[in-house]
Amino acid sequence: MHTDLVAALDIGGTKIAGALVDGQGRILARAQRPTPAQADGDTVMRSVEAVLGELAASPLWGRASAVGIGSAGPVDASAGTVSPVNVPGWRDYPLVAGVRAATGGLPVELIGDGVAITAAEHWQGAARGHDNALCMVVSTGVGGGLVLGGRLHPGPTGNTGHIGHISVDLDGDPCPCGSRGCVERIASGPNIARRALANGWLPGPDGDTSAAAVAAAARAGDPVAVASFTRAARALAAGIAATATLVEIDIAVVGGGVGKAGEVLFAPLRQALTEYATLSFVRRLVVAPARMGTDAGLVGAAAAALTLRTDPAAAGV
Amino acid sequence: MHTDLVAALDIGGTKIAGALVDGQGRILARAQRPTPAQADGDTVMRSVEAVLGELAASPLWGRASAVGIGSAGPVDASAGTVSPVNVPGWRDYPLVAGVRAATGGLPVELIGDGVAITAAEHWQGAARGHDNALCMVVSTGVGGGLVLGGRLHPGPTGNTGHIGHISVDLDGDPCPCGSRGCVERIASGPNIARRALANGWLPGPDGDTSAAAVAAAARAGDPVAVASFTRAARALAAGIAATATLVEIDIAVVGGGVGKAGEVLFAPLRQALTEYATLSFVRRLVVAPARMGTDAGLVGAAAAALTLRTDPAAAGV
Repeated sequence: MHTDLVAALDIGGTKIAGALVDGQGRILARAQRPTPAQADGDTVMRSVEAVLGELAASPLWGRASAVGIGSAGPVDASAGTVSPVNVPGWRDYPLVAGVRAATGGLPVELIGDGVAITAAEHWQGAARGHDNALCMVVSTGVGGGLVLGGRLHPGPTGNTGHIGHISVDLDGDPCPCGSRGCVERIASGPNIARRALANGWLPGPDGDTSAAAVAAAARAGDPVAVASFTRAARALAAGIAATATLVEIDIAVVGGGVGKAGEVLFAPLRQALTEYATLSFVRRLVVAPARMGTDAGLVGAAAAALTLRTDPAAAGV
Repeated sequence: MHTDLVAALDIGGTKIAGALVDGQGRILARAQRPTPAQADGDTVMRSVEAVLGELAASPLWGRASAVGIGSAGPVDASAGTVSPVNVPGWRDYPLVAGVRAATGGLPVELIGDGVAITAAEHWQGAARGHDNALCMVVSTGVGGGLVLGGRLHPGPTGNTGHIGHISVDLDGDPCPCGSRGCVERIASGPNIARRALANGWLPGPDGDTSAAAVAAAARAGDPVAVASFTRAARALAAGIAATATLVEIDIAVVGGGVGKAGEVLFAPLRQALTEYATLSFVRRLVVAPARMGTDAGLVGAAAAALTLRTDPAAAGV
């Protein structure tokens, strides 16, 4: 019997996606359920089991040798538990044990969703071929993950690269995480929109006040919209430069809805990086848009299951 | 012939220290020269050669199998060159090739001085037994290094953990490095003293305006002195919390002259960490004073030579 596939789960506050993925990252079967985000923990787990059950009905299931999970965080890979901010029923919830039980005892690898995206970009996307990389999702929140020394570096609990919650403004606005001046507090989509509105930007006749609408206004030359993206870019640059200065990354990959804004974000981001990434060993740093699409979480979870099990050192523990 | 020793060099802007070190970190022979910091590069190199020559006169020299160098940075381990800020004659200076030639071809490992201190604290000091650690020197400057996954993580160019030049105040004061609001710009000894003086602190009759004098005043209850240390502690806490959030360290070791200030620094530092290190996976983070003394640079350079050569993966490349 071949055991050349892995099952992958991508668990977020909106949906639970599953897939069977081969060694080349191809998705051979899929399943998906909405996340009952406000339900109790066991109810959420039943949706995970339903996704796994649907995958198990595939004739390919018998070839799956492991399960990779990328979950909204924080996660605790060392304990096998998750506490996603947007799924209040899961607090230190034993997801790994539940998935192992639901799959007849398959080995399970758990990583945070930012780490999963990073695994995907490093395997097949914009960070491919880079031994030291930061990959970010800039969207409703700001997340990320790290590749160090050529390998995914999830860290002991699977949360490394959590760039959204480093402070780049130690006297700045309070962040819901409890800290102040976090990258996410300045650069996330909702904060880009909030700041534009607060400074007098007026949405169009459709009333769209999303960051995408601010991006469209910035592309049309609205100075308040431009300024809000520039401020976000400066916070991202300070965070990226800090990461490069701490762990010597040579590329920062930026994805997510805000990352799709294009040059409205990337032009001031590259400019700000020249101001914050000043030491000799970080000046080579480049930024690039993400290349993986909506399957990045699934492909990355699969990559983690395929690589971490065969290379315990890559787990960073 | 035994080859159980390594030669170690600790190169700074003031002195060039050398030693023969055994596998237990014991220093068996020493040599030292002042750094001719304002001389041309080859003159500085002749002082390094003099230190090596003095070590080579030891009957133990024949047992040395490698040379470890911890140098003021930036360094470029991949190129074998150094560009210490305080030694202007050395810019991309081929130190590794020079040391190899001066030692008849011994293998040479080059790391930054912050990384060397970290290697020492992890081997024999306050970070011993910790698999994920940040070690810092808070002094005239602020430097550091990282242990990740149980191993020293110098990074591709030997500069990781450069926490002094991450921005924690993106709109803050310009830093000599070219960025703004760097940890060093707020928390170094000279900046602690500068801020105290600017806010009205008056030195004692001896006219001592060092950070140590500010620390003494703070211990005696001077509110301006206390405030300057508290501000430094907040910048250090933001930087330490950022590092923990990015790479999941579980201990931050703080040494150097400012680190010796004791509770005047550590009490507000621990308090500020509760404010900036908020995510579940960083709340366990502890801070501890450094334990290694003035030989930390030599012991750490020796540790790098002993471990990196036998474990290329630890080089992070």
